[in-house]
Amino acid sequence: MTSAEDKITAWFAAQSTADSARFPIGIGDDMAQVALSGGASVLITTDMLLDGVHFDLSQIGIEKAGRKAMAVSLSDCAAMATVPICAVVSVALPSDFGSAELKELHAGIVRGGEPFGCALVGGDITSWQNPLAISVAMLSRPGDTLPVRRDGARPGDVVCVTGSLGGSMHGRHLDFTPRVNEALAIAKAAGINAMIDLSDGLSTDLNRICRMSKVGALIEADKIPLSDDARKSKDPLASALNDGEDFELLFTVTGEDYDRLKSSPPHSTPITKIGTVTYLEARQIGETGPTAKSGAVQIRMADGKTRDLVARGYDHL
Amino acid sequence: MTSAEDKITAWFAAQSTADSARFPIGIGDDMAQVALSGGASVLITTDMLLDGVHFDLSQIGIEKAGRKAMAVSLSDCAAMATVPICAVVSVALPSDFGSAELKELHAGIVRGGEPFGCALVGGDITSWQNPLAISVAMLSRPGDTLPVRRDGARPGDVVCVTGSLGGSMHGRHLDFTPRVNEALAIAKAAGINAMIDLSDGLSTDLNRICRMSKVGALIEADKIPLSDDARKSKDPLASALNDGEDFELLFTVTGEDYDRLKSSPPHSTPITKIGTVTYLEARQIGETGPTAKSGAVQIRMADGKTRDLVARGYDHL
Repeated sequence: MTSAEDKITAWFAAQSTADSARFPIGIGDDMAQVALSGGASVLITTDMLLDGVHFDLSQIGIEKAGRKAMAVSLSDCAAMATVPICAVVSVALPSDFGSAELKELHAGIVRGGEPFGCALVGGDITSWQNPLAISVAMLSRPGDTLPVRRDGARPGDVVCVTGSLGGSMHGRHLDFTPRVNEALAIAKAAGINAMIDLSDGLSTDLNRICRMSKVGALIEADKIPLSDDARKSKDPLASALNDGEDFELLFTVTGEDYDRLKSSPPHSTPITKIGTVTYLEARQIGETGPTAKSGAVQIRMADGKTRDLVARGYDHL
Repeated sequence: MTSAEDKITAWFAAQSTADSARFPIGIGDDMAQVALSGGASVLITTDMLLDGVHFDLSQIGIEKAGRKAMAVSLSDCAAMATVPICAVVSVALPSDFGSAELKELHAGIVRGGEPFGCALVGGDITSWQNPLAISVAMLSRPGDTLPVRRDGARPGDVVCVTGSLGGSMHGRHLDFTPRVNEALAIAKAAGINAMIDLSDGLSTDLNRICRMSKVGALIEADKIPLSDDARKSKDPLASALNDGEDFELLFTVTGEDYDRLKSSPPHSTPITKIGTVTYLEARQIGETGPTAKSGAVQIRMADGKTRDLVARGYDHL
C-alpha cells in the first residue's frame, strides 16, 4: 500500500532532528514551516521537473516547462492553504541551449508566478550534456488560517475534491491552474481538517492523508468527478483514481462545514463530496495479524461492492 | 569581461518586477532577501550540482556529493554574513539508484548541514535515465548585522580574502568548510562593505564585486595566498586566480576596519589583504570611447607591471 517514495520519505522524516519549535511542520507534508522571530513564519517547498518525465521538450516548448515547474510548486502552496511569496529556480541546461532558451524559460516562470504574486528572486544555471532539469523552491506564508496539514482528517469528516480528475497527460498537466485561490477561499469559509494536492493520483494521495491522519476512508466510485479526458479513456474510473497530475485539491471537512461550503460556495471551482473519513479498525493499527489483509481506505463501486483502494498512482521511485 | 552567466543574470535582474520593499535584495547577489511581517526577514539561495560537472560519481561516493551540495549553499549564506536555517533538497536520481543511495545522499546532506545548525526540512525525489542532479535551496536569517551585499565596495577599501586559493579540484572542492562562522565573526568585528564567496575564481568574482559596486580594484599578485595545491601547478598564480571552487570569502573593508581585523583577528582562519578598491576612471563609466579598452580591475605582477585582471574563472554557460 505504501509507495517506495513514501517509504523513503517516512525514513527521512524519522531521521530528522529538526526542532519542532523552529520547524512546526517538517518533512512529510506538502511544505515545511519555518518559525521566525516575532511570530512570523514562512513555508518552503521544492520540486524537480525533468525532461522526459514531467514534460517532453520534443513535444512542447521550454516556456511551457518553466510555467509547469512554477505551477507544481504553487499547487503545494495551495495544498497548505498558504499565500505564495517568491521562488528561486535552478536549472541544468542541455549544452546546446543558450540565452534564447533561458529567456523562454524565464517567460514561462513569470507566466506561472505572476497571477499569484509569486516573484522570481534568484536562481542558478549550469550547463551539461544531458536533458533539461528544472528545480523550483518556493516560499509562502500563512493566509487567514494556520497552514492546513495532511494529518488532521477526523472520522466523520466529508472527503472532497475540487474540479475533475483523470487524463491530465492529454494536456492539462501543462496548463492547469494551481488551486491557490480556491484553497485560501475554502480555508477561510470552512475549517479544513486535512488537505493535499492531487499530484500523484487520488488513490495514492487519499492513502497519504489517511495514513498520516491515522484514519480510514470510504469513497463512492460514482461520486468521483471525471474529467472529459478521463471519460475518453478505456477505464475512466481508473484514470481518475491513478493517472496523477490533476493538481486539484483533496480535503476533509466536518459535515457542518461541508454544508456551509455547499450553501455558499467560496469559489467558482466546483467542490464535490466523494466520501467519508472512517475509524481505523483495530486490526489495521498493528497490521501484523492475519486480519490485516484489508486496507483502511476503501471504495464502493457502482455495483455496491466495496474494495480496498490501493495506491496505484504515480510513484517517483 | 562579463561572462555569459553574468550577462543572463543581469538580463534576469533587469526583467524583475519584484517590489524592493518586499524583496530588499533581489536577483544578482548571493542570496535574495524576503521581508516578512513584524520586521523579520529570510534570505534564500539555490544551487544545482550535477554529476560530471560539480562532482564525478565514478570517482566519489554519493555521500560526498550530498555534503558538497549543502556546503555550496552554506557558502552563499557565508557570502552575505547570514545565519543558515534550513534546506530543502530536490534530486533527479539515476534509475539504477534506490533507497541505499538515497540514504547515503541523506548522510552527506546531514553531515554538510549539521555543523551549521542547518536542518533538512523537505525535498523531492524523482528517478530518470540520466545522471544525478542535486538541487539545494537554503534559507538563512540576518546575523548581528545587515546582510552583506556585493555592491557596497568603496574606493579606498582594502580587498581581503580568507584562507588560500587555487587547485581545489585536487580534492578541496569536496571537503571545504563553508566560511559561515568566519563571515559572521568578521561582520561583527568590522564593517564589511562588500562580500562574495569565491565560487568561480578570484578573477571572476572580484570583477563581479567591482562591476556591482561601480568601482575598480588593484590587487598585488605576490600578496595572493596560494594554496599548497596551487603551488604544485605549472602556473600557481593562474590557478589561484581562475580555478574556482575555493569557497573562501572575498570582501572589502575600510583601512581602519582592516587594521582592527589584523590587531584582533575574529577567527583562526587567516585573512589576507590582497589589494585596494579604486575609483573608476571616467573612461570606464561610459565604456564607449577608444580609451575604454582597459578594464577597471587590475593586478600588479611581481615584476611591478600592471595588467587588466580579466575574468577567466568558471563560466557556467
